[in-house]
Amino acid sequence: MALIVQKYGGTSVGDLERIRNVARRALAARKDGNDVVVVVSAMAGETNRLLRLTGQIAKRPSQREQDVVVSTGEQVSVGLLALAIQEMKGKARSFLGHQVRILTDSAFSNARIRSIDGEKLFESLKRKEIAVVAGFQGIDDQGNITTLGRGGSDTTAVALAAALKADACEIFTDVDGVYTTDPNLCAKARKLDRISYEEMLELASLGAKVLQIRSVEFAMKYKVPLWVKSSFTEDPGTLVCEEDKAMEEVVVSGIALTRDESRFVVRNVPDKPGVAAKIFGTLAELGIVVDVIVQTPAHEDGRTDLAFTVGRVDVDRANEQMRKIARQIGAGKVEHEEGIAKVSIVGVGMRNHAGVAAKMFQVLADEGVNIRVISTSEIKVSCLIDEKYAELAVRALHTAFGLDKKEA
Amino acid sequence: MALIVQKYGGTSVGDLERIRNVARRALAARKDGNDVVVVVSAMAGETNRLLRLTGQIAKRPSQREQDVVVSTGEQVSVGLLALAIQEMKGKARSFLGHQVRILTDSAFSNARIRSIDGEKLFESLKRKEIAVVAGFQGIDDQGNITTLGRGGSDTTAVALAAALKADACEIFTDVDGVYTTDPNLCAKARKLDRISYEEMLELASLGAKVLQIRSVEFAMKYKVPLWVKSSFTEDPGTLVCEEDKAMEEVVVSGIALTRDESRFVVRNVPDKPGVAAKIFGTLAELGIVVDVIVQTPAHEDGRTDLAFTVGRVDVDRANEQMRKIARQIGAGKVEHEEGIAKVSIVGVGMRNHAGVAAKMFQVLADEGVNIRVISTSEIKVSCLIDEKYAELAVRALHTAFGLDKKEA
Repeated sequence: MALIVQKYGGTSVGDLERIRNVARRALAARKDGNDVVVVVSAMAGETNRLLRLTGQIAKRPSQREQDVVVSTGEQVSVGLLALAIQEMKGKARSFLGHQVRILTDSAFSNARIRSIDGEKLFESLKRKEIAVVAGFQGIDDQGNITTLGRGGSDTTAVALAAALKADACEIFTDVDGVYTTDPNLCAKARKLDRISYEEMLELASLGAKVLQIRSVEFAMKYKVPLWVKSSFTEDPGTLVCEEDKAMEEVVVSGIALTRDESRFVVRNVPDKPGVAAKIFGTLAELGIVVDVIVQTPAHEDGRTDLAFTVGRVDVDRANEQMRKIARQIGAGKVEHEEGIAKVSIVGVGMRNHAGVAAKMFQVLADEGVNIRVISTSEIKVSCLIDEKYAELAVRALHTAFGLDKKEA
Repeated sequence: MALIVQKYGGTSVGDLERIRNVARRALAARKDGNDVVVVVSAMAGETNRLLRLTGQIAKRPSQREQDVVVSTGEQVSVGLLALAIQEMKGKARSFLGHQVRILTDSAFSNARIRSIDGEKLFESLKRKEIAVVAGFQGIDDQGNITTLGRGGSDTTAVALAAALKADACEIFTDVDGVYTTDPNLCAKARKLDRISYEEMLELASLGAKVLQIRSVEFAMKYKVPLWVKSSFTEDPGTLVCEEDKAMEEVVVSGIALTRDESRFVVRNVPDKPGVAAKIFGTLAELGIVVDVIVQTPAHEDGRTDLAFTVGRVDVDRANEQMRKIARQIGAGKVEHEEGIAKVSIVGVGMRNHAGVAAKMFQVLADEGVNIRVISTSEIKVSCLIDEKYAELAVRALHTAFGLDKKEA
């Protein structure tokens, strides 16, 4: 008998019929002899409806009160799911963040979980109930309601699995697992049976939006085996877990793509302490999200070039600010270029294989794709390229690194 | 400086513009130098929407889970009202039942308040905030969310006023006070400036649906001065308070009418202990609400007639049951008659005035209205009459007891 935490997103509980479907799945897991804890999000569209209300009543709503309003979405879901399970003759009980006691910090609308008390849930499981827990919400040490930020229900599920020492955490969503790359870009994309936490983190942060990054970090930290499954099929899905020998034999596990980036280059930046901090500190204060940052070694004149990318929405503000900052720090001209894509190969196996980066560059060169900026980490190589080559690059790399699915 | 508890019902917070209106009123009370606690209901229609959801997912929803879902209505209201006040540069903070700690018993969907902790609210007032409290909801000693039943926000407001020793509790609604009778029945109905708790209780239970009965009982018990006011006008409204000398000079304060009753008469009931308990115990078990009960003195044969009324919806079930019960207890035949109305005069002054009942009977007789059953209490006389005379009876009594408003 295992203890399983299941999590169902907003689409999976989008209407009453879908809530009944979730109830059937949870009951099936229970009938297989497992203890079952189910975490649910708000019904699809509900969080946005509530945010519209707070946005209409206040230009800049206080985050504390917004959390009070928005957290009702999950509260309705847990009540309805518990009722649906009971209607199918199952035992169930709903739990809100303050009832479990999911203690968070007080960063309203983007709180972090500090601790989870498992006692009430264990009591519930002992009574043979399916414990239905509201995702996305917690309570701070003052008793204020907090929310964990978009996608926070994934984090709730993984954190619960860690606190309860669950045997598995199953994240049900509208895709049936993690793919080698976006199937919309590349028809040969293949579903992965397993992937390591580290690879999942790189893929998630690079734009594969299956799981919230924080939930993967949490799972990695507490070694929670994480399944990504479809709530609409019986497919076994993808297991996100610690890397093992077999994984290391696969050099590249997936290809990620981020579009709509803009590249900035600041020329002749004085190579002295505090300059990079000045530039990126200013941008961060303005809420401009910077992605890749690359600095080349200083020239003989003690000056260097600094390149970085920002999303398209922030280009104008970033451009305006960078011209000011460049004057202040005595740098040269600021160039920027839009229509940039970032294509990345990710895999724990590349640690042990020389030449992976070189092979990537060669594949791109063979396709006539010019590389603007290169950035690497231990298990990832990213190249900035002209956006018009994005799909071509993904498909070429997918084939070259042996990721294409076999012909049926 | 006074401490005021204001309560706004669902119509008063029915949309965002109305919520802003409530924010303005609360801020005005605050600017007048008062400490202000505001209790709000769910936005009009929201509770019914949520009940529809629970009713669609389960035929007989568990009351615990239904309360989890339904209590979100007030949660949204308090968050939005706090935001609206903040948007007008006021200080405000929302409180849910579990945050104030409004402790109730565990009678889900119809819980009763056991105690209220005033500490967090006093802290809030000390910070010069308007404390915005969710009506209708509480928490039991196990941490389960409970609701107080329909109209429970009135009870929340009065209970808070009692716990905080508030100087006044103002109930804002869509009528501008308590009237001598229903203005829809009688154009000469007059708004009362003051009315005693006892009279209000009789009027409320007799069909003047301005205030929930339990909230009036609570106010009477803790001597909370209760104002009934309109949230859409500046009219001072009606004060519900302890009776004073001036009130006793008014013999009759109001006329109440209840329609759609059915009268049952059980003939030749054995006049021995336990018989009435058997009859009304059985009806109560079936959830049939019995209103007036009248038993005439026993005849010489040791038998008596027993009359009572039930609402139209329960007539068929009551009829079926009464025939069974009559056989079991060896009573005579069961008669029943539909289309009965109950008209009542209410007033604390009638305690000290002989002949009030006689005057009522004479007024009805003068109009040719036959009285079927009479029932009296210390401050009330009720007559069951044929429903077709209902409006006529109300208007005649209203004039006869000097309640008509003066011509403008």
